[in-house]
Amino acid sequence: MAHIKLFIPGPIEVSEKTLRAFATPMVGHRSKEFQALYAEIKPRLQELFVTKQPVFVSTTSAWGVMEGAIRNLVSKKVLNCMSGAFSDKWFDVAKKCGKAAEAYQVEWGQPILAEEIDKRLATGEFDAITLIHNETSTGTMNPLWEIAAVLRKYPDVQFIVDVVSSFSAMNIPFDELGIDVLLAGTQKALAMPAGACLFAVSEKAFAKAATIKDRGYYLDFLEFRKNAESDMTPTTPSISHFYALRSKLDDFFTEGLENRYARHLANAKLARAWALDRGFELFPAAGYESVSLTCVKNTRNVDIPKVNAHLKKTYSCVIDGGYGKIKGTTFRLSHMGDESTENIRLLLEWMDDAIKVAGA
Amino acid sequence: MAHIKLFIPGPIEVSEKTLRAFATPMVGHRSKEFQALYAEIKPRLQELFVTKQPVFVSTTSAWGVMEGAIRNLVSKKVLNCMSGAFSDKWFDVAKKCGKAAEAYQVEWGQPILAEEIDKRLATGEFDAITLIHNETSTGTMNPLWEIAAVLRKYPDVQFIVDVVSSFSAMNIPFDELGIDVLLAGTQKALAMPAGACLFAVSEKAFAKAATIKDRGYYLDFLEFRKNAESDMTPTTPSISHFYALRSKLDDFFTEGLENRYARHLANAKLARAWALDRGFELFPAAGYESVSLTCVKNTRNVDIPKVNAHLKKTYSCVIDGGYGKIKGTTFRLSHMGDESTENIRLLLEWMDDAIKVAGA
Repeated sequence: MAHIKLFIPGPIEVSEKTLRAFATPMVGHRSKEFQALYAEIKPRLQELFVTKQPVFVSTTSAWGVMEGAIRNLVSKKVLNCMSGAFSDKWFDVAKKCGKAAEAYQVEWGQPILAEEIDKRLATGEFDAITLIHNETSTGTMNPLWEIAAVLRKYPDVQFIVDVVSSFSAMNIPFDELGIDVLLAGTQKALAMPAGACLFAVSEKAFAKAATIKDRGYYLDFLEFRKNAESDMTPTTPSISHFYALRSKLDDFFTEGLENRYARHLANAKLARAWALDRGFELFPAAGYESVSLTCVKNTRNVDIPKVNAHLKKTYSCVIDGGYGKIKGTTFRLSHMGDESTENIRLLLEWMDDAIKVAGA
Repeated sequence: MAHIKLFIPGPIEVSEKTLRAFATPMVGHRSKEFQALYAEIKPRLQELFVTKQPVFVSTTSAWGVMEGAIRNLVSKKVLNCMSGAFSDKWFDVAKKCGKAAEAYQVEWGQPILAEEIDKRLATGEFDAITLIHNETSTGTMNPLWEIAAVLRKYPDVQFIVDVVSSFSAMNIPFDELGIDVLLAGTQKALAMPAGACLFAVSEKAFAKAATIKDRGYYLDFLEFRKNAESDMTPTTPSISHFYALRSKLDDFFTEGLENRYARHLANAKLARAWALDRGFELFPAAGYESVSLTCVKNTRNVDIPKVNAHLKKTYSCVIDGGYGKIKGTTFRLSHMGDESTENIRLLLEWMDDAIKVAGA
């Protein structure tokens, strides 16, 4: 079967170079070879997270660390900011972990507002808040800097931020923003295989975790810290992801982080302009469009399965036909990862052709 | 750097064929392509587990599912059978999950005894028991069939069994043994890359999980079951491990399971005979030696780091120098996975040479 390139918002295309690194033969995870590998990666991860804190690699997808953050940090009550399929679900997950949780729900596509968070945190009821920076289901990016400014007023509240699909597509400085847990999925903008999650933890979060007795083991943040001090992981890691990550970090720093971020923004602007020019609307509220994917309102009622069938057959690629309750009424173009602006330009040409063929 | 072949008890050598499958480009995990992949694997996993129950793949190492089993199934108290580094730790993990736990501890190398379990379960205090079938740290295999026979007397007790390093090295029939959760690490006898865990769950365990309110999400057994019904996983899986698993199952059924099991036993017998013939003793109590690795008492005080240095330099391979509190006083030879009897014969010749060079 021909390889089908993924312009869906994760998993995305993984380069042959990354896949070759990923397929490096095993080493023992308690060996000097593994320690050297992790030691080589660590400072560059810190540079990418813009932090002096340790950065960890969890052998789970992002939901593992999302649940882990709840288990490590919530003893009173968590405020779940909800604006799409994934952020909505975090509220359910908090309750499934036996924690008290409150929903701050906005309509899908609308932003989470700093002042609304402020009002809720002012009650003093909460010791943690969860925010998805870039809601992948709706292509909406929340105002992280404004929200971080509000959080500074609440030093007892743990600020848990999911940047699963925006991380490495723009600068997200962990220390400067005062974030307590920041987590990123490997299969999104990092352009690595699915199956691991990068995360950083603040000193404030470590201190809080130390007070929580039933935080578990597999995602115990203190175990991660202790083991990382000797360049190891608490349990057997997906060693292959460490190899892929080393290769990917080489790519990032060869391109230059600023260039990488600029490329993602240029690609996003192209995709947005294309959608508007072709008579579609953007799903997110104006000013809150994601930098890594474009969620388009299917105002022309294009038959997206037909579009995808043509893209697959003629151009060996696929886009995404919408997620959850907005499946069909939206479609999503991913422009994260390694995609050059030329590639995105091509994708948009192919879209034009596919829409014509689909008869819209 | 030359490739160093791993004769340590996990991660072990992964074949080039498996690594090639592992490095297959991504597909969307909500796509028909992924569903077809999982659907192809499922019946063969059931054949391997000898079960009619669903078999799942968790994107965690084994500790994820070991913790998950505790969270899904323990409401009263868990009995942790402890006889080595990993089984001892399960007791700590149960407590870190906020569960009441009791230790049944035997000396490392001694077997867990069915009658001792019987005595403890007869108190009626327990609703779950954890057992590591093949304690990797000591190379000791517990009498699973005898223990399973005792467990039949206690239908309210969940029987959680870790076969991390014995699975696929011998027949472990899930349904026949009446096990409730059986979990296996990919990086051991399955000869796959580290980073995933196979597990099966009984109807009794699903029913119990449904009564536990804070069982979480990432390892919620009911979520796994619901998603597996449509050939999917609750969260983004390590898709690469599914590809590797498909390739590996091809290998298993091409060799034939009975041949595979016979090969592992033959290799184990070779290694044990070599150790005894060379004046060493076996660490496990007689009759309880593991079929997948041989833990040797270093009665000749061989300098194992020197042995390993020679093996590495001359034969591009390594063995293991012991784990935890028996590091140095034992060493471990792994003969699990794809190793032919000829390979193990060679390894033992190399050991002879290396021991001579090390000056023992």
